[in-house]
Amino acid sequence: MSLIENLNWRHAVKAYNSTKKVSEEDLNKILEAARLAPTSSGLQPFRVIVVENQELKEKMVKDAFNSEVMRDCSHVLVFAAWDSYSNEKIDKVYDHHTDVRDLPQGRFSSYTDMLKEIYNAQTPEQHFAHTARQSYIAFALAIAQAAELKIDSTPAEGFNNQFVDEILELKEQGLKSVSILYLGYKDPEKDWVSNMKKVRIPMEEFIIKK
Amino acid sequence: MSLIENLNWRHAVKAYNSTKKVSEEDLNKILEAARLAPTSSGLQPFRVIVVENQELKEKMVKDAFNSEVMRDCSHVLVFAAWDSYSNEKIDKVYDHHTDVRDLPQGRFSSYTDMLKEIYNAQTPEQHFAHTARQSYIAFALAIAQAAELKIDSTPAEGFNNQFVDEILELKEQGLKSVSILYLGYKDPEKDWVSNMKKVRIPMEEFIIKK
Repeated sequence: MSLIENLNWRHAVKAYNSTKKVSEEDLNKILEAARLAPTSSGLQPFRVIVVENQELKEKMVKDAFNSEVMRDCSHVLVFAAWDSYSNEKIDKVYDHHTDVRDLPQGRFSSYTDMLKEIYNAQTPEQHFAHTARQSYIAFALAIAQAAELKIDSTPAEGFNNQFVDEILELKEQGLKSVSILYLGYKDPEKDWVSNMKKVRIPMEEFIIKK
Repeated sequence: MSLIENLNWRHAVKAYNSTKKVSEEDLNKILEAARLAPTSSGLQPFRVIVVENQELKEKMVKDAFNSEVMRDCSHVLVFAAWDSYSNEKIDKVYDHHTDVRDLPQGRFSSYTDMLKEIYNAQTPEQHFAHTARQSYIAFALAIAQAAELKIDSTPAEGFNNQFVDEILELKEQGLKSVSILYLGYKDPEKDWVSNMKKVRIPMEEFIIKK
């Protein structure tokens, strides 16, 4: 099926069948789509925390907007962005680039020098505003990949970020949670959105032709 | 082809063949994927400005990081997010929801009241931080849709936002530019990235299993 058919198929599921688990193979495809997301300067300034452990999921329920979804879904993917850029992080990415491409180390140094100059002039708040945005590209591609596999999902921002950061020990890793993608198989009886028409604004309002 | 194959196929093209244009049919599919993007509370707080006019493209070149790309690509999509949320905007979206779903107007009023309370307590800066993030979901899906159609694209943030906002008269429409997607067909001779290996961090570094 095409991406457009998959996007029409999916919706933000409101209730999951807690007995049905997403297979390892399918989960890996969803993570792979997220990993392949293009990002600014290729820095991939975010990570995905995969939570399958039921006890941990139940801890994370606290203050979550979708507590039943958190509890009953198969896997919780937490998209967490770098709290800041640094020269070391930039060098690490570009050293990996030169390794993979079999180029001399430092091949991109004029580019990375420019990046460092830009980011060194910014505050950590500006960094995080930027890294968080990048994480949405991967978030979107994970949603699309789940739909391609006919796996239900629920994209969510309504959770206690600080609490989730603590539970998942994100601060220690220089990360801050941004969004969550719940994955699983819906409970069609309880998922009240299932039978509702998808609503989007008409194309003529969505685009502005110049 | 699968999403993963499409994502492996694509890369951020650095040079376009200025004589090859994206068809209207394909362009519409790319816009449709963006329109179908899931967004927070379904508000779709962004618009896509489609620029095909060569004169306008050449004006927008000013300070753009990819000036040749801007000039030679077939179409420029500017993703622009709402500068703020308002009660009126929220009501307009949910009136459309009840219309499409043939439900009584006000059916979602307890939900929209809650949304209004949340957003009314925030500054326009907080609003825009949120609307801009949402626009990246559509941005990502447009990138994926272009790849499915084997249309080349270049996602970009490096341009003069204020200048683009002025030229496209976005302020008057309550919008602020966030990102650009250049679309077209690459010039394989000049696109120096074409033959380079795609680089992403290894999966074991990208994910954190809990």
